[in-house]
Amino acid sequence: MADRQALLDRQDPLDRQDPLDRQAPLFGRVAIVGIGLIGSSLARAIARAGLAGEIAIADRNAAALARAEALGLGTSYHATAAEAAKSADLVIACVPVGACGPVAAEIAPVLSATAIVSDVGSVKGSVIRQMAPLLPNPRRLVPAHPVAGTEHSGPDAGFAELFDNRWCILTPPDDAEADAVEKVAALWKGCGANVEVMTSDHHDLVLAITSHLPHLIAYNIVGTAADLEQVTQSEVIKFSAGGFRDFTRIAASDPTMWRDVFLHNKDAVLEVLGRFSEDLAALQRAIRWGDGEQLFDVFTRTRAIRRGIIEAGQDTASPDFGRRPAVDAAPAPTEPPVKAAKAS
Amino acid sequence: MADRQALLDRQDPLDRQDPLDRQAPLFGRVAIVGIGLIGSSLARAIARAGLAGEIAIADRNAAALARAEALGLGTSYHATAAEAAKSADLVIACVPVGACGPVAAEIAPVLSATAIVSDVGSVKGSVIRQMAPLLPNPRRLVPAHPVAGTEHSGPDAGFAELFDNRWCILTPPDDAEADAVEKVAALWKGCGANVEVMTSDHHDLVLAITSHLPHLIAYNIVGTAADLEQVTQSEVIKFSAGGFRDFTRIAASDPTMWRDVFLHNKDAVLEVLGRFSEDLAALQRAIRWGDGEQLFDVFTRTRAIRRGIIEAGQDTASPDFGRRPAVDAAPAPTEPPVKAAKAS
Repeated sequence: MADRQALLDRQDPLDRQDPLDRQAPLFGRVAIVGIGLIGSSLARAIARAGLAGEIAIADRNAAALARAEALGLGTSYHATAAEAAKSADLVIACVPVGACGPVAAEIAPVLSATAIVSDVGSVKGSVIRQMAPLLPNPRRLVPAHPVAGTEHSGPDAGFAELFDNRWCILTPPDDAEADAVEKVAALWKGCGANVEVMTSDHHDLVLAITSHLPHLIAYNIVGTAADLEQVTQSEVIKFSAGGFRDFTRIAASDPTMWRDVFLHNKDAVLEVLGRFSEDLAALQRAIRWGDGEQLFDVFTRTRAIRRGIIEAGQDTASPDFGRRPAVDAAPAPTEPPVKAAKAS
Repeated sequence: MADRQALLDRQDPLDRQDPLDRQAPLFGRVAIVGIGLIGSSLARAIARAGLAGEIAIADRNAAALARAEALGLGTSYHATAAEAAKSADLVIACVPVGACGPVAAEIAPVLSATAIVSDVGSVKGSVIRQMAPLLPNPRRLVPAHPVAGTEHSGPDAGFAELFDNRWCILTPPDDAEADAVEKVAALWKGCGANVEVMTSDHHDLVLAITSHLPHLIAYNIVGTAADLEQVTQSEVIKFSAGGFRDFTRIAASDPTMWRDVFLHNKDAVLEVLGRFSEDLAALQRAIRWGDGEQLFDVFTRTRAIRRGIIEAGQDTASPDFGRRPAVDAAPAPTEPPVKAAKAS
């Protein structure tokens, strides 16, 4: 519980917004195009911190738009991106990566000269290539990627705290206008995130290994299990606590979003996938030939990275992510004082 | 919180122990050989339900044994398995799979004629082949595998609730004595688990896909990430919330235990690994050729299995396994009422 308090303490939006003006909101009108998990979390986080005078929400899916209105996520609701973008100071495309080009084409005619355009996609090079040529002022395009999410989708799945203490990566092209980059950075800080700037190429490689490949192999193993004739689906489900269930959580993520990620980050994904497969072949050979030493070495070196993730506040040290009801009563050491003993 | 109450209600050990005698404990003396995560959780669960008159704990690691004594996990503490097994009604080897043969050799000379021998290993065929030939009465060998665990190791990491509502698989050979199988089943039910009986061959295949392969690829991806020259370890850690951190949790499990699993379940692991690699090659080809339809199909069919796991009570529907502090305030639908919309 101490951790929780510390997190809440860090979340004070006014601290985050500093040194900007505490009276006027950061933006007059923000348009959010696409009100799924990320778009709806962003609308909630912007409202929480009072970062915008108006939040205009667009979604071409009428049911999602109606739900957003019922939840009171914005100040106005629009069937088209263009309507929402009209007189907006910032337009954020919260859509699958493959839909970013169409959004740019739709909003371009109505954008004001100073309007900033951004997105939240998991791939950045493709977003820039799709959107920049269509915009009236491509130097006010500031692509962003909040590295946060859950396996749930849609406006109901979002929550204001999704970005707290997560990282948001900005990948502005070299000629991006500085004030636009600063304002987008301030928005994400106001939403609770830490902000990092890097090139889109580097982003796409870093995310290929930390996010895209994990999702691909999670989807893949669930498919392999479903096809195994000798093991029933009911058995896979019953005995999933041995490790499999963690993969199914990741593999429950939105299929459209993930299809687009792989189609639009092809080169980087194929590069890390090639390395993964080589490494897996080496482990396979070690198993076939009974090379216990090699297995032990690989299984040992991974612990340092896990420890780093916990120390960086990017995961919990509680067993099983703390999902067990009994966790309050159990010790949760990052390193147990005594290692597992091999009795004989 | 409703879920938690339901779980607690189900945990009443007296209900579990029914229809056995509620007055006398199930066993006079239980010997636990190896006091790591599973052994120490078992000692706590046996004590919680009053299933044994004495709990004799053995570990050849002096530090682990001293820690077990400091934690008060048993009624006596022994440097050798033989001392603990003397006059025990049940001896449970809670050691890496590769150490089961040596434990059997050590306890065989002191076992009483009616003593039952069991284990908790993740591989069952090998355990039977290692232990049965060494025991005075192999028909009282009842191999068991509680499908439960966390990424932490050692006597401090255990907790009594680890097996609650998890499955414990028994794989008694065809000629096992019925009373021995029944008593081991009663022990695990008393510890909160559901019990299932199957052949050791089938167990080893089911676990190869639901547990062993997930661990292998989790270890592997963490290794691949560590070796990627263009991405720093600090970046892997910072941006791990995109999916990678879930794999590092699994890959933090005990290396000795997992080395032994792969050495002792070679055939089944190589079989499912071969299928996994074929399927992954097909996904790789779909990415290379931009086949979005195939990707979408694979990414969609996995959701039913996830839903089954949640309905079976083997995981939580809360986003991110409920690890986010904000989860109480957020809705946690298994299926969101409105799907993510693709705006254009």
